[in-house]
Order: sequence, then C-alpha cells, then structure tokens
Amino acid sequence: MNYQEYAEYREKFVEMVDEKRLTELKNILADLNVVDTAEIIEDMEDTYLLICFRMLAKEKGAEVFSFMEPYDQKRIINKINNSELEEILDELDFDDMIDILEEMPANVVTKVLQKSTPEERTEINKFLMYDKNSAGSIMTIEYVSLKRDWTVAEALDHIKEFGKDKEIIYTCYVESEYKQLLGFVSLRTLVVADKDALINDIMETDLVYFSTSDDKEEVAQAFTRYGYIAIPVVDREHRLCGIITFDDVMDIVEDEATEDIHKMAAINPSEDEYLDQTPWQLAKNRIPWLLILMISATLTSGIITKYNFILSQFLILSSFIPMITDTGGNSGSQSSTVVIRAIATGEIGLRDGVAVIFKEFRVGVICGVVLSAVNFLRLLIFTQADIKISFLVSLTILCTVILSKLMGAILPLFAERINLDPAIMASALITTIIDSVVLVIYFGLASIILGI
Amino acid sequence: MNYQEYAEYREKFVEMVDEKRLTELKNILADLNVVDTAEIIEDMEDTYLLICFRMLAKEKGAEVFSFMEPYDQKRIINKINNSELEEILDELDFDDMIDILEEMPANVVTKVLQKSTPEERTEINKFLMYDKNSAGSIMTIEYVSLKRDWTVAEALDHIKEFGKDKEIIYTCYVESEYKQLLGFVSLRTLVVADKDALINDIMETDLVYFSTSDDKEEVAQAFTRYGYIAIPVVDREHRLCGIITFDDVMDIVEDEATEDIHKMAAINPSEDEYLDQTPWQLAKNRIPWLLILMISATLTSGIITKYNFILSQFLILSSFIPMITDTGGNSGSQSSTVVIRAIATGEIGLRDGVAVIFKEFRVGVICGVVLSAVNFLRLLIFTQADIKISFLVSLTILCTVILSKLMGAILPLFAERINLDPAIMASALITTIIDSVVLVIYFGLASIILGI
Repeated sequence: MNYQEYAEYREKFVEMVDEKRLTELKNILADLNVVDTAEIIEDMEDTYLLICFRMLAKEKGAEVFSFMEPYDQKRIINKINNSELEEILDELDFDDMIDILEEMPANVVTKVLQKSTPEERTEINKFLMYDKNSAGSIMTIEYVSLKRDWTVAEALDHIKEFGKDKEIIYTCYVESEYKQLLGFVSLRTLVVADKDALINDIMETDLVYFSTSDDKEEVAQAFTRYGYIAIPVVDREHRLCGIITFDDVMDIVEDEATEDIHKMAAINPSEDEYLDQTPWQLAKNRIPWLLILMISATLTSGIITKYNFILSQFLILSSFIPMITDTGGNSGSQSSTVVIRAIATGEIGLRDGVAVIFKEFRVGVICGVVLSAVNFLRLLIFTQADIKISFLVSLTILCTVILSKLMGAILPLFAERINLDPAIMASALITTIIDSVVLVIYFGLASIILGI
Repeated sequence: MNYQEYAEYREKFVEMVDEKRLTELKNILADLNVVDTAEIIEDMEDTYLLICFRMLAKEKGAEVFSFMEPYDQKRIINKINNSELEEILDELDFDDMIDILEEMPANVVTKVLQKSTPEERTEINKFLMYDKNSAGSIMTIEYVSLKRDWTVAEALDHIKEFGKDKEIIYTCYVESEYKQLLGFVSLRTLVVADKDALINDIMETDLVYFSTSDDKEEVAQAFTRYGYIAIPVVDREHRLCGIITFDDVMDIVEDEATEDIHKMAAINPSEDEYLDQTPWQLAKNRIPWLLILMISATLTSGIITKYNFILSQFLILSSFIPMITDTGGNSGSQSSTVVIRAIATGEIGLRDGVAVIFKEFRVGVICGVVLSAVNFLRLLIFTQADIKISFLVSLTILCTVILSKLMGAILPLFAERINLDPAIMASALITTIIDSVVLVIYFGLASIILGI
C-alpha cells in the first residue's frame, strides 16, 4: 500500500465517521493489516483518530498502537482513560510496552506499575533502568530457551507448547542450569534434524552476542553486517537476559542515518522526534554550530579588509565573491559528502586514503576546467566584462574547484585518522574553511593579473 | 568484532603469510565467522588476499566471497583461474550468484553460462534480464513451496527433505497446480499446528507481494514498514517467481540513505561504488549541479553591482558579505535538512506544514537573537567597528536567520507538494536562493541606517 492509498482510506474513514457508518468502518478496519492501519489513522485529527482506534478489536488495537509514531501514541494516551490504556499495555509485546512506557509521563508509568504483579513490576523496572541507547533498552524477554540435554523431539514439543507467545521462535537459545548462554539452535536445524538427536550435539556455539550496556548503534551494525534474525544479550555473568530481533533494528538503522544527516548539516543530534521538540530545544541543538561558523567567518572579513586596496580600485571584483565562495563550498561538500558516506558504510577506509585523494584531484581538474570555461564564455558574452577580469574570475574558479575537491577528500579522512566523526567535516565546516582559502587565491591572482 | 579487531587479525594474517605459517592460518580461518572473514581479508593487498582466500574450504570460500564488496570480488576474479571461479559460483546461493554475474565482464558470464545445464542457463538468463533496480533482480528462487491439500505432517516432511538448500524456510509459500501464489504458512504456524491439519486451512491469504518489475526501493520500504522476514514476487499471471529476504534488503536501505545524502549534496545519484567509478563518471554526476548553482549565483553578482554605490562609500561592508551569506546558508540548511529527513522517514507530512513552518519561525527568532547579539558585541569589542556598522550587520543577521529558517522549512514542503523530491531543496540550492535574498536585505538596511 502506498501513500496515495493511505490518503484515500483516510478520506473514506473520515466520511464514514461523519456519516455515522460505524459498522462499515469497523468491518473495513478488521480486514486491514496492522501496519497499514497505523499509517492510515495516525495522520487523522484527534477525534477521528480516537473513533477509528476504538473500532479495533482489543488485541489488534494494541498492535496498531505499537506501530504508531511516539508523537501519535501520546495523542492517544492523552485522550483515553486509564482502563483503556491498561488494556492496550496488557496486550502489547514486552519490548513494545517498555518502549512506550519510556515515552510516557511519570504518573502514567506509576499507574501501570501499580496494576502489575510484583514479578512483572521487577522486570519492567529493570528494563526502564537500561540506558536509552543501550542494547538492554531494545531487547525482549519473549524468546525460546532450551536445555542442552533435551532431544530434538522434546525441544519441538516445548516450542509447540510455549512458542505461541514468543516474539521470535526461529532462533532458540540453549541455557545452562544457571541461565548461562551456551549456544543456539535455529528452528531450521531442529526441523531438519533427527528427532532423537541431543540439543547439545546440534547447537552452534559460534555466538555473536551483546552485553546489556552495549550501544544500540553497534547492535544495528552487527545486524546489517551478519544478516541474523535475532542476537542474544547477556549480563556480566554471561547469563541470557533477552534477545534483540531484526525488525526492531530496522528503526535504529533509520535513526542512525538521521543522526548522521543532521550532523552533516551542523546540528547537534537529538533523540526526540521533530514534532515533539519545543522551539527552545531545537534552537539549543543548532545555535552552537551557527555561532562557531559565524565567528570563524571573521577570518574571511579580515582577508577582504586586508585586500581593500584592490577592491577600492576594482569594485566589480566584490560582486563575484559570493559566486566564487559558493562554487568552492559546493564542490567541497560534494567531495566531503561522498567520502564521509563511503567511510560510514565501510566502503573505504584509511588505507584507501591516497587513492581517494588522487581520484578527487582528477575529478577536481575535470569539474574545474568545465566550470571555468563556461564561466569565461558567460562573462564575455553576457556581461561584457573586461577580458582580464573574466580571465581572473575563471582562473580563480579553476583553482577553487580543484582545491575544494582535495580538501573535501582530505578533511574527513583526517577526522577519521584522529578518531573524530568524519560527519563533522561536512558542508558547513568545509565551506567556512574553503571561503578563506578561496579569497586569498582570488585576491592573490587579482594583484598579479591586474598588476596592482 | 569491531574494526580494531579486524585490523589486528589482518596484521596477524600478513605476518603468518610472510613467515609461511600457513597451516596455522588455515586453522584460524576455519574457525572465523564468514562475515568477519570477508571484512578482514577484503582489505588486504592482492597477494595476501588471494593466499587467505585459497586457505578457505570450498563452500566457506564461496560464502565469504558473497559477503565481500563488489570492488574486492572483482580483485579476486581477476586473479584466479576459471576453474576456481566456477567452483565458487557452484557453491553460491542463487541470488548471490546472479548479483555477482551482473557485476562481471561479459566474457566471464559467457563462460559460466557455457558450463551450466540448459535449465540453469534459462534461469540465469531470465534473472540477468531483470532491470537492476527491479524486485526481480534481488529475489532468490531458493524458497519452500507447499501444496494446499497437504497436511502439516506432510509439509514438515517436505521441509525436512528439501529445506536444507533453501535460503529461507521460515515462510513457506502455497502454490496452486499452475504455480499461482495462494498464500503462505510460517514455519512457526506449522510447528505449533496440529499434525493432521490441512495447509489449506491454516495458510494465510492476506499477502503482501511484489511484481518482478516493481522498484526495489518500494521493496525496501515495505520490509521496514511491515517487519517481514521474506516477501514473495509474482509475475503478471500471479505465478510465484521467487522471494526476497530481509537480509538482502538491509543493503538496499543503506544504498537508499546514500542516494538521499548524495542528492542533498547536489550530486546526481549513481548505482556504482565510489572506488569502482572513474574520475570521469564521478565528475559527470557532479558538474550539472555545480554549473546550475554557479550560473544562478550570477544573481548575487547582479545585486552587488546594483548596490556598488553603497560599497564605494563604505567599502568595509563588502568584508561582511561572506559571513552574512554563510550564516544564512547554514541556518537555512539546518532547517531544510531536518524537514527533508522528517518527510523521508514519514514523521511529518503536508498536513503538518503549518505547524512546521510556525515552529521553524520561532526557532529562527531564538537563533537570530542569540547570533545577532553575539555578533554585535564581537564587532564592538574586538574590531572597533563603527557602532552604526555593527548595528547594521547584526540586524541583517537577525533578519537573515529568521528568513532562512522559514525558507528552509517552506521549500522542501513546497517540493513535496508539487511531487518533487524534497532532497533537491537541500543545502546547495537553499544557499543559492538565500544568498540573493540576504544581500537585498543587507543593502536595503544599509541605505536606511547609513542614510545613503
């Protein structure tokens, strides 16, 4: 289903609510996939959202709820009563419930905890204490665990009996009597294996696992790298605490890309959704970089002031400054973006440094020649500029493009070398650095060519 | 395993090759995970890469090969002989083999096809004809298919017998006698179900599927949205042609993010890896935007020329131009980046437009006040600038930041509204537009404040 279709459903639903055709609405909602339902109703206005949500069967409602954006989950929580909220939470998968509790105001959390059994309460509290960025915070406890002395037939019976409530049964974990993680068996192996074989003999011990405090970014990278369906999480005593499943990681991959893109636009990354943040919070993440970049641009003012004697004789030169610095900034950020992204995806590393720099040099020569040629003709034909000035500006563009491409390649590699995040070297910072260099070239060439 | 550990292994391996401790090397390689092995050896120099690769058992070698970057796969292909290559291809999963054949020179493909059976040849040729961006090009034919009149016990026996060579057995597809796709049964359902139940009664028919010609981006979005392990692909007659598995889609998600990031840096996106592209190809993807942006910057030259009479009296004003335009560009690209990304991840849509614009306006006021205040003090204290000039520059910064934030929010939303890719409105284009607006404000305020 695509966005167009979502919009059509949405209109249809609003119409049905307005015309009180609720049974019809209920029937359509009952047949829709949970993910699609969430996408359709979360974009509706409060009243309509709530009516549609209440038309869902209890269990389905909880699932739809878990697929909504946190912002829209809050809209629902703010409008429903406590018993409705409890019903939703009861039906949710354990890890989805924890995710939602983390987003809710403290009074709601307290209420939920009061209604839970002591065992549940302990478990929930343990999960709420994991750091928001840790592997612990995204794991689920709904996994299948097996004993090493069971046979395949016993294991399959166990899965048949208890597997229904588990989030993933395709990878089962083998624990010792002290809950230590010993290995894993995939359901595939179990189904294909001889019924009398011992778990101990068919389990794999070549484990990739995480500790509860590991960063969830690392977890996401491991999933992309290894292509596993689930990865187990252990505590300090190597006891199995939970598992992380591939579908939870897809969101993290998206969040990571967002974080990188924000960093590249000179914004301090934030955990929260855009619509959830106040203007103050948003401004707080943006002002530091704006200030740094504004103040470092003082350098360019200094350079221009220093060459004021050239400008005073050829005022026309000042009119080309934005075009030249923009071209430098754009060329440089093209290169830095490509290099930053290739480092992030692991395509290039420091050992490719020389090859990358030499390649960007050649790209710079090609781009520079084309741009300066076009610029030269344009100035001569359309602006009737002095041929000397046209030549000066075009030559500056040639040097600018080559140099910007080189710096765009070198700076992120340098950041990687000294263990800084290469994303920091993106557009904004590169532009500021390039501006100064380019102005020195411009005025330097001017004093030679115009003989000042 | 992290990059540090990879580097350590790499050094160890090089040392072992140099000292001819090959049995030791072989033993260590035999115990390593295939993904880790690929990551470690693909960054080695040709000779070492080849020696390590040849130390791997045949089947494992093929798997390691499939996890390498195309660039490194080609390095190996160029160095090994044809019979070695055939052995690798024989051992590969069908979809991995197709991926690799697509990257190889025509003479290698022909050789491979000659050695295959007629049936294999037909199948390979069919796959090589799918468009590189289509769902057909990333699917595999190694899936489990069931008949609707089988019992669960029969289905499980079938899986036990034939499942070993299939890429994914966790979702099995039910086909009619004419190979039409009827529904699916998860292995979970099969394991939990009654042995005598009929497939027809337990299969699910609420199918999400793709056609072979659908765009692979859509496929990736569907996986992220629904969290499925596999999605089937059908032809025009609704016959099942293959399935796409979640692990193949992770790479596409990464590629999509790269494409967006490149677009935002004003680069035409390319399918190929950076190291595989010649400087000509790279330049070709960058020159069009550089030219467009350079020529549109003519507008700024025109504006400055028009106000030359102001500059001729207050030459100092020219020295602030880069700082002011940079600050505008940075403020604007912060907003546009946030908005573009929120649209891409589906967090905001057109219906949030007014809220977003109003929020960015308030962020702009906060950022603008802070920046202009800091700038005012800085100019007064450190540069002993005239108080009127300081006031003029600071007021310009205030207007610039507010206006840039507004435009950074409005332009991507406008692009979305008219069905353009919002990513086009990123940094480079915003900067060029903002430059002109900001210069008009600067000179306009100058003529008022300085009374020219």
